[in-house]
Amino acid sequence: MPIIAVDAMGGDHAPDEVVKGVAQVSLSTDIECLVVGDESRIQHVLEAVPYNPEHISILHARDAIGMAEEPREAVRTRKDASLVVAVRAVAEGRADAAISAGNTGACVLACAKHFRLIRGIRRAALASVYPRHTEYLGQDRLALLLDVGATVHCEAEELVQFALMGNAYARRISKVASPRIGLLNMGSEETKGGEALVETHRRLRELPGVDFVGNVEGNDLPRGRADVIVCEGLVGNVVLKLIEGMAELFGDLAGVAAERRIAWRVGLYLLSRGIERLRALTDYTQYGGSPILGFERLFLKCHGRSNAHAIANAVKVAAKAVRDRVPEEIGAAIAALR
Amino acid sequence: MPIIAVDAMGGDHAPDEVVKGVAQVSLSTDIECLVVGDESRIQHVLEAVPYNPEHISILHARDAIGMAEEPREAVRTRKDASLVVAVRAVAEGRADAAISAGNTGACVLACAKHFRLIRGIRRAALASVYPRHTEYLGQDRLALLLDVGATVHCEAEELVQFALMGNAYARRISKVASPRIGLLNMGSEETKGGEALVETHRRLRELPGVDFVGNVEGNDLPRGRADVIVCEGLVGNVVLKLIEGMAELFGDLAGVAAERRIAWRVGLYLLSRGIERLRALTDYTQYGGSPILGFERLFLKCHGRSNAHAIANAVKVAAKAVRDRVPEEIGAAIAALR
Repeated sequence: MPIIAVDAMGGDHAPDEVVKGVAQVSLSTDIECLVVGDESRIQHVLEAVPYNPEHISILHARDAIGMAEEPREAVRTRKDASLVVAVRAVAEGRADAAISAGNTGACVLACAKHFRLIRGIRRAALASVYPRHTEYLGQDRLALLLDVGATVHCEAEELVQFALMGNAYARRISKVASPRIGLLNMGSEETKGGEALVETHRRLRELPGVDFVGNVEGNDLPRGRADVIVCEGLVGNVVLKLIEGMAELFGDLAGVAAERRIAWRVGLYLLSRGIERLRALTDYTQYGGSPILGFERLFLKCHGRSNAHAIANAVKVAAKAVRDRVPEEIGAAIAALR
Repeated sequence: MPIIAVDAMGGDHAPDEVVKGVAQVSLSTDIECLVVGDESRIQHVLEAVPYNPEHISILHARDAIGMAEEPREAVRTRKDASLVVAVRAVAEGRADAAISAGNTGACVLACAKHFRLIRGIRRAALASVYPRHTEYLGQDRLALLLDVGATVHCEAEELVQFALMGNAYARRISKVASPRIGLLNMGSEETKGGEALVETHRRLRELPGVDFVGNVEGNDLPRGRADVIVCEGLVGNVVLKLIEGMAELFGDLAGVAAERRIAWRVGLYLLSRGIERLRALTDYTQYGGSPILGFERLFLKCHGRSNAHAIANAVKVAAKAVRDRVPEEIGAAIAALR
């Protein structure tokens, strides 16, 4: 059974929700969690909930990196921070993968500092699932977007590697035998998007074993055209936050409308199942985490607002990725490319 | 009174809706339109609607560029295309500004070929208004995003110029005395986004006469934090199409829900005014056009799906921009920068 290192001190609701999530997993699976953080606070939370002590061990860390801290400085100087200790535990083989709902930049930098890149990989990518409308029965409700913030701009070689990394992750985690790969661009024509995207398009088209569906545009993202969308980190980051921001705004507006008028309130009640469907499309908290791909070891970044349920999901996804040997599959794809 | 050259043959509903829009404007304003395209088809549409012949003249063009044509080749070879003839008419002083609902790439390239850049400007930008939630009474319901596709990646100097161009346009067209300028980025910290964005941030912060609110992130876009958002063309294009795609998807889902269940149908009816508000936030067709900024002459690109109402709005906005001397104001801001 895989051992997952869990940063107990990262996230808006840490350590309570994180530890509760671990407790849930300890009862429902055989996954072992190495919970890293302030031991007395972790114990305090555990005392209040049911859990299986055989599946949980605690690794004390006396420091924690805050959500708003400057990541580079924090990772460089705070060697006893729970996140850094958790990542180091994986690097040293005491656990198989790590998860955290903490400071995203610090997560990426801690991995970069302590994990080795898979042989041949030039840069790691932060991937994120996002909910999209499905276009056929049985299609996964989540698509994978990468990179969403580990890079700013990229060269073609890096984007091609992101495609292979996303392909491997989607095959293993989403169980899509042949994920459709799309290249996020400013037009569907292969001549669009500048030198790096044009070359990426050409190379992906010629790549065996990859179902490349061509360029996808912004309006394709909420629909099911591609299962894995490849892009530079700057645009991926903006896109992901925009999807989240629009969903929140729609939610707010519906709420305001409902408060103002009785008729709307009645309407909203009747529509609730429809609205629920809209919400489900965009509710991040119910999904696990965003994998950092490209390293020999796996790391899952959970949403900062993660509740216990989201943390439990992330632990399960991380364990599955370890069992299904995702990094090894990425390594094999990159080796085949060379 | 300004003379506006109108490409009658561009857009999904050309020439009918374009010519009808011109006819509407001819009755309600003193703006003169030079309608460029197939003369007999234009005449045919005009015969069926009321219009003021004193405000409309026709310039025959026997060719038209299709929506899906490769823009570079089309602009290079199709010298008699309505779009190219309209832009040339402005360059030669026969009209003051041009509008088209046609092929966006061809619009940008036709301007680049026939218009001169304002002295000191390095690259033109395609700007687009998009509807956003307002945060205080009287705030404009539209924000301006640029560039949305004339460029791919940009240097700091170009992004700073985009900020000045957007500032001038928003001041004149939105009548916001001091528009709040935001830099689209992958984090709020000034160290984010790579070299070009970091330098742009630093320069905008020090620029007198510009109300720079700092970096804005994807989730800020649908809200009222900034009135003008500056970005590279690739990310701007993806963002704009994503906003449109999500609005369409929400609309579709609400529709599907309404068809399926009587209760939802009743709910939808009661909610209709609320839904209308949501829709209005994202309905592009009711707004005029997207200005191409940076040239000595003004061009407004209308949405491909523009109806007569949208065309009429675009003609009015173009005339206002000419009267309010938007290019001259941009020129003055750039001169002050140097």
